[in-house]
Amino acid sequence: MIAHYWYHDPVQTLDQEALSAARAHQSILTKPAGSLGLLETLAEQYAAWQGKTYPSIEHIAVVIFAGDHGVCAQGVSAFPQAVTTQMIMNFLSGGAAISVLSRALPAVFSVVNMGTVTELPTDVAQHTQLTTVNIAPGTADFSQTAAMSDEQLQMALAAGRAQVQQLSATDIFIGAEMGIGNTTSASAIYAALLSLRAQHVVGPGTGIDQAGIIRKQTVVDAALARHKLRDNSLSHHPYEVLRCVGGFEIAALVASYIAAAQRGIPILVDGFICTAAALLAVAINPGVRAWLLFSHCSAEPAHKIALDYLQARPLLDLGLRLGEGSGAALAVPLIQSALLLHRQMATFSQAGVSDQHA
Amino acid sequence: MIAHYWYHDPVQTLDQEALSAARAHQSILTKPAGSLGLLETLAEQYAAWQGKTYPSIEHIAVVIFAGDHGVCAQGVSAFPQAVTTQMIMNFLSGGAAISVLSRALPAVFSVVNMGTVTELPTDVAQHTQLTTVNIAPGTADFSQTAAMSDEQLQMALAAGRAQVQQLSATDIFIGAEMGIGNTTSASAIYAALLSLRAQHVVGPGTGIDQAGIIRKQTVVDAALARHKLRDNSLSHHPYEVLRCVGGFEIAALVASYIAAAQRGIPILVDGFICTAAALLAVAINPGVRAWLLFSHCSAEPAHKIALDYLQARPLLDLGLRLGEGSGAALAVPLIQSALLLHRQMATFSQAGVSDQHA
Repeated sequence: MIAHYWYHDPVQTLDQEALSAARAHQSILTKPAGSLGLLETLAEQYAAWQGKTYPSIEHIAVVIFAGDHGVCAQGVSAFPQAVTTQMIMNFLSGGAAISVLSRALPAVFSVVNMGTVTELPTDVAQHTQLTTVNIAPGTADFSQTAAMSDEQLQMALAAGRAQVQQLSATDIFIGAEMGIGNTTSASAIYAALLSLRAQHVVGPGTGIDQAGIIRKQTVVDAALARHKLRDNSLSHHPYEVLRCVGGFEIAALVASYIAAAQRGIPILVDGFICTAAALLAVAINPGVRAWLLFSHCSAEPAHKIALDYLQARPLLDLGLRLGEGSGAALAVPLIQSALLLHRQMATFSQAGVSDQHA
Repeated sequence: MIAHYWYHDPVQTLDQEALSAARAHQSILTKPAGSLGLLETLAEQYAAWQGKTYPSIEHIAVVIFAGDHGVCAQGVSAFPQAVTTQMIMNFLSGGAAISVLSRALPAVFSVVNMGTVTELPTDVAQHTQLTTVNIAPGTADFSQTAAMSDEQLQMALAAGRAQVQQLSATDIFIGAEMGIGNTTSASAIYAALLSLRAQHVVGPGTGIDQAGIIRKQTVVDAALARHKLRDNSLSHHPYEVLRCVGGFEIAALVASYIAAAQRGIPILVDGFICTAAALLAVAINPGVRAWLLFSHCSAEPAHKIALDYLQARPLLDLGLRLGEGSGAALAVPLIQSALLLHRQMATFSQAGVSDQHA
């Protein structure tokens, strides 16, 4: 018998009536049918999500989960682990890319410290936009042992869920991440869930050199063998994949995506790490897929493979590889434009424009 | 001896010092080097254009040139020619896609009637956002004769140039177009300039059926033979290509791009028709290329070929095929985000973040 956990609970259903109404409205706007491409699909999808013929995005939430990774001991990152904590401070003081973009949107912005190697200074730890979960000073080195204990994983999942439960009305949820070493963890997740060899999923991350890429590949392949995660398909043990090679921030993301879909909040997925969390969320609860929108295709090689697997067409392809939710935040104005066109364009009859073929 | 015309005059030079300063600034922002991909290039390019280390976009101009096409007599469009005039009215009353997007940006918005088959009602003709050039009620049918006389082409070029000369300080110029039948004209321009057969450049435009596509292909191939435009390379007679198979609105666009580059105004090129005008502008005055930014790759099959030829990496790929400048207007917030990140992100030393490799 399989135990029942909250993350297996069903997600919100889509409003098929609003979807049909939005589709009908698209067909009478003053443009050739289909000529706004993906923007038409976006408007229709949002109608189904919001249960409104004329949807809109007003309230945007960005939640950054940050955590350290024991696997950094294997020399898999271009940056020292202290940067995770330094970047938490940069997020909170407004100088990081995601801080700049969140301010401009504007989005409600918060940071969750899931556990870092370096402690935050006391004054920063009191910041109103910071939640401290602090499961441990980073995960264990997954090349040696499971990244997390079962208890730690449950704590991380609960923290991710709680963040979404605390949100007030939200039209778009951007879960984001920071964690030196987390492209290695994400690569191991892709390799396990999509049955890929490390050489096809490991890229330069934030900028490691060729020798570092080879170290990452070796670490990923060895870890999958050690944890017996080879040749699992998406239907097998996503929970074990997450526990053995995941990270605190990735687990929180997984839970936040599932919780958002259960609350009926549309989810805008960021890049390589967030898509690993999305793969896990869909593997755990397939209904989540219907609430995911993919913002961009990152420069990491396996990202496109995963997007294809999820039958996702990302909105942007700009060679981004920063993480932090930055690609998702960049895509928001495009979605807002799609909804604005849907609401404000004239119909053929309003404008006296012929919709007859010549 | 080649006569000297204004469109051969040199374009503004780029500010190499500002470019270097912007590049140096990018390298000390709190992100891994290169991790913002194309957004970093955009910020550096804008620095070179504006001669400022920290560029910004405040004043946006959208100018839509509209004109009818005699080649519609060959059954090449899904819509009747009256739609060109109907859409001019829709632009001015605020119901078209580009009207909605211009209002939201906001952009200064104007329409130039270059000559249509159906006359505008008198009250609309007085609209303050409308300029009437009215060269003729559409071009001649280029399957039978040259689309324009030499005098008509000169009028169209002068009108395009005048629009740019009238602009007050502008940080981004979006030249746009409307003209039933103009994908056939643009396809003929691509075929002539890039030495392509019609079957490789003719697409469904705003939505013609398979029989219509074959009619368009036949018209384009026959017109290139009739006007002796086959196997010309980009260095041959772009002016003759424009006169024989172009349109009033396309000629105005060509002139507007050249004039903008001469004034030092960055140009955001829209889709399939605008890229045909960009190809011609670059063929006439190669310096123009340095002032062009390409907003999106449209659904028309030849567009990607032309973008590759121009070594352009478009910002968006959303399956758009509307024209009107809509793809360009959609890309503006992305460029603004790139410049905002460049201006507002913290540096490594400001944020106390390590830029040392591990």
